[in-house]
Amino acid sequence: MAREVGRPPEEVDPEIEALVREIIGRVADKWTMLILEALEERGTLRFTEIARHVEGISQKMLTKTVRQMERDGLITRTVFPVVPPRVEYALTNLGRSLGEAFCGVWIWAESHRDQIQEARRAFDG
Amino acid sequence: MAREVGRPPEEVDPEIEALVREIIGRVADKWTMLILEALEERGTLRFTEIARHVEGISQKMLTKTVRQMERDGLITRTVFPVVPPRVEYALTNLGRSLGEAFCGVWIWAESHRDQIQEARRAFDG
Repeated sequence: MAREVGRPPEEVDPEIEALVREIIGRVADKWTMLILEALEERGTLRFTEIARHVEGISQKMLTKTVRQMERDGLITRTVFPVVPPRVEYALTNLGRSLGEAFCGVWIWAESHRDQIQEARRAFDG
Repeated sequence: MAREVGRPPEEVDPEIEALVREIIGRVADKWTMLILEALEERGTLRFTEIARHVEGISQKMLTKTVRQMERDGLITRTVFPVVPPRVEYALTNLGRSLGEAFCGVWIWAESHRDQIQEARRAFDG
């Protein structure tokens, strides 16, 4: 969280804080995280291959998410002039660094899954 | 990412992997992250106070998100029997640990914001 980097909230430039929140809003997104993970594990992937590795994503959502990720500089999109055109996606260094930052959340989910399941059972029961 | 915890994907129990992905899908969500941050910074908050600190969230989305967070064991919801009833939300230890795991993503957003803005300008221009 913002205060962990060692600055009390009062000292944070509100414009920068708004930008950081906007970035968080963009990247703290399940599809972005799952696409990042697929590209990190598999390297370069074609559009249809990403769709296969990211279960449950619609074509529309995948199109929108890879476009936003390309705009944010997280992935590259390379079009090969063949027929039919081949389009390949890969992580940039920036995307790889976000993948590393997310790593803590994956580890958290793995190590707390029993607690979460237990909380759900208690809530539902 | 899953492979960072030191196990090749082949060895991961597919049922556990599906659960972890489902948990990631739940918590990798901008509203969850922003509510976590508000509660971490401010401690206990009432519903309307969360709404004030999490800019742009609709009442419907806030209701849905705090309910899911309560079900997942991330926050507690305490109702005080006064008129009108007072309802307070606070992080559990599990919620606090998720906040810590997310911390890397906040730091990433803070330290890479210039690169992201530059990528956006290049994409849009």
